[in-house]
Amino acid sequence: MTSLDDLPIRDDLRGREPYGAPQLDVPCALNTNENPYPPSERLVKALGEAVMDVAGTLNRYPDRDAAALRDDLAAFLNADTPGAGLSGRRVWAANGSNEIIQQILQAFGGAGRTALGFEPSYSMHPIITRVSGTRWVDASRDADFGLDPARAVAAVREHRPDVVFLTSPNNPTGTALPLEAIEAVLRAAPGMVVVDEAYAEFRRAGTPSALTLLERHPRLIVTRTMSKAFAMAGTRLGYLAAHPAVVDALLLVRLPYHLSAVTQAVARTALAHGEELLGGVEALRGERDRTVAWLRGLGLRVADSDANFVLFGTFPDRRAVWEGMLARGVLIREVGPPEWLRVSVGTPAEMAAFRAALSAALTDPQALEESS
Amino acid sequence: MTSLDDLPIRDDLRGREPYGAPQLDVPCALNTNENPYPPSERLVKALGEAVMDVAGTLNRYPDRDAAALRDDLAAFLNADTPGAGLSGRRVWAANGSNEIIQQILQAFGGAGRTALGFEPSYSMHPIITRVSGTRWVDASRDADFGLDPARAVAAVREHRPDVVFLTSPNNPTGTALPLEAIEAVLRAAPGMVVVDEAYAEFRRAGTPSALTLLERHPRLIVTRTMSKAFAMAGTRLGYLAAHPAVVDALLLVRLPYHLSAVTQAVARTALAHGEELLGGVEALRGERDRTVAWLRGLGLRVADSDANFVLFGTFPDRRAVWEGMLARGVLIREVGPPEWLRVSVGTPAEMAAFRAALSAALTDPQALEESS
Repeated sequence: MTSLDDLPIRDDLRGREPYGAPQLDVPCALNTNENPYPPSERLVKALGEAVMDVAGTLNRYPDRDAAALRDDLAAFLNADTPGAGLSGRRVWAANGSNEIIQQILQAFGGAGRTALGFEPSYSMHPIITRVSGTRWVDASRDADFGLDPARAVAAVREHRPDVVFLTSPNNPTGTALPLEAIEAVLRAAPGMVVVDEAYAEFRRAGTPSALTLLERHPRLIVTRTMSKAFAMAGTRLGYLAAHPAVVDALLLVRLPYHLSAVTQAVARTALAHGEELLGGVEALRGERDRTVAWLRGLGLRVADSDANFVLFGTFPDRRAVWEGMLARGVLIREVGPPEWLRVSVGTPAEMAAFRAALSAALTDPQALEESS
Repeated sequence: MTSLDDLPIRDDLRGREPYGAPQLDVPCALNTNENPYPPSERLVKALGEAVMDVAGTLNRYPDRDAAALRDDLAAFLNADTPGAGLSGRRVWAANGSNEIIQQILQAFGGAGRTALGFEPSYSMHPIITRVSGTRWVDASRDADFGLDPARAVAAVREHRPDVVFLTSPNNPTGTALPLEAIEAVLRAAPGMVVVDEAYAEFRRAGTPSALTLLERHPRLIVTRTMSKAFAMAGTRLGYLAAHPAVVDALLLVRLPYHLSAVTQAVARTALAHGEELLGGVEALRGERDRTVAWLRGLGLRVADSDANFVLFGTFPDRRAVWEGMLARGVLIREVGPPEWLRVSVGTPAEMAAFRAALSAALTDPQALEESS
């Protein structure tokens, strides 16, 4: 019987495991930073109708450049970040921000080129980097998960990366970066600088977005997604804002017709209902801050969070805690630095279940014996 | 003002143009091998309802492995090709067969590796190959657009490619390959052999599918699409059938959650209405054969076609003919070998417009002067 080992796959893929959180059927899934608030019945109907509006021409290829969707995304960003001043020409969209990241690496990375990130961070950055044939360098974050500008600049000067990934707010730590750190990296970097803002809409008041830097920095790319605050993870719509020349570069590597007519229609309808979809953000911010406070009340270490998740620890045997919670129907994520766990912020009821499950898991004999 | 030339894109992308047929608004678009028959009102309604059924959970990520869709695709292939004997475990799906091809090259190609094809063929094969960092070798088809097995084997032995692309029926020539040629390449090839069957459902009676070879060849991959016969180009759903170990290899490179919940629902609904969607295939086959006969009646050279398009020529200035037809509202494609043009098979009314426009274009002073 042929197995994967018998096939002529790339040498650097040998022995690797597919990426992905376990997709388990549990009462309380707090593991993939989804927005817990589903679309309303009104929006469900609008989405169905939007698809019916395009379904009659599904025998035809979609608009290859998704022009109308990009205009709508630009309008959303301009409302989200006053002063962004974007047009659709400065926005690009794809099937999830993973595909956006892949296109960036296909255009600016590749054999003989280097991408640099500061881990712990979004684990797909190094994975997509390697699949694209680009070398990955981890310059690592500070002990408090922040990023000292001088140290970041030194890492950039040392490795001269073709692509730098900055993540703000950072996944899985929740840490937002000050614009000074981003600008320092932009000044030092010889290549492209990607600021992954997948969780930007959850940032605390006063936390800036890198969108405001685009006007002055043609090598800056800011990526966003509709999967998180926008509550559309199932739609798979990621996007970026950048200089028009960056969009031109991505046209050289994007798969033609990569974005279906259905995806374009669903995403545009979601944007038109942005007020509803983003309506849960304020509640999630509050629930997040309460979760941080509660965990600190337990005496645990908790990272400050500008996102819709909280990283907490430390547990010498985090697996035991994770399993103890799973046994109680609450699925969180074993990700990031060893000894830490990440919980996505859910509804008040889900967070009550989280608190009950964690309290119980921490009093299990095994966890008691091993947790610090 | 920054332009693309000022950005640090990969050297091998410099000076390239984005791929893609012109997206022009014309009365009669016969340029991208779309199926001219749109979904019925009944199917439009079913598609909208299917999306409403999943829209209530779009805040959640989709099934990362698209298990139900893959089962449905396997069932379709088993009906299409008796003896295929496939299960969902042997099928993989992505956003168009372009993404399928990209995933194959990411798993089996890359720096230091080679992919070989026989041009003229689907122009995305070399483009995606190069974007993946893989070297492309064109061993070229025979003068009649066929592929002599001995010559194909010799090319494979000479270049020892990691991936071989065979296209049957071939785009843009319409030529189907005998199984003997495919099996000869499979025996000689050291790596993976991809048979691109995007147009398989249009093949003439008695023309085999490579699906029947899968049982005996674990390094064979057969790719298909719902964009052509299935009349779902706007949905972007490509797929493949292969050994389960091949699917395991693709799991290492696929972007997690690459296929949206909406795409999965729309594609499954389309498959459930396969009888309607494929209902136009018989008519298109007849229209194709009549188009071949009519073009030959004009004294033109015409390639035999097992697809939903016809390649014809030869025109020393094919651009003049193409423009002459466009001026008359009929958009065909300048693609493939110089001096040839490709027309997609449309409805009887569209083909009447094609015949009228071609007849007129060929009597234009400029075309008359230059065509052979």
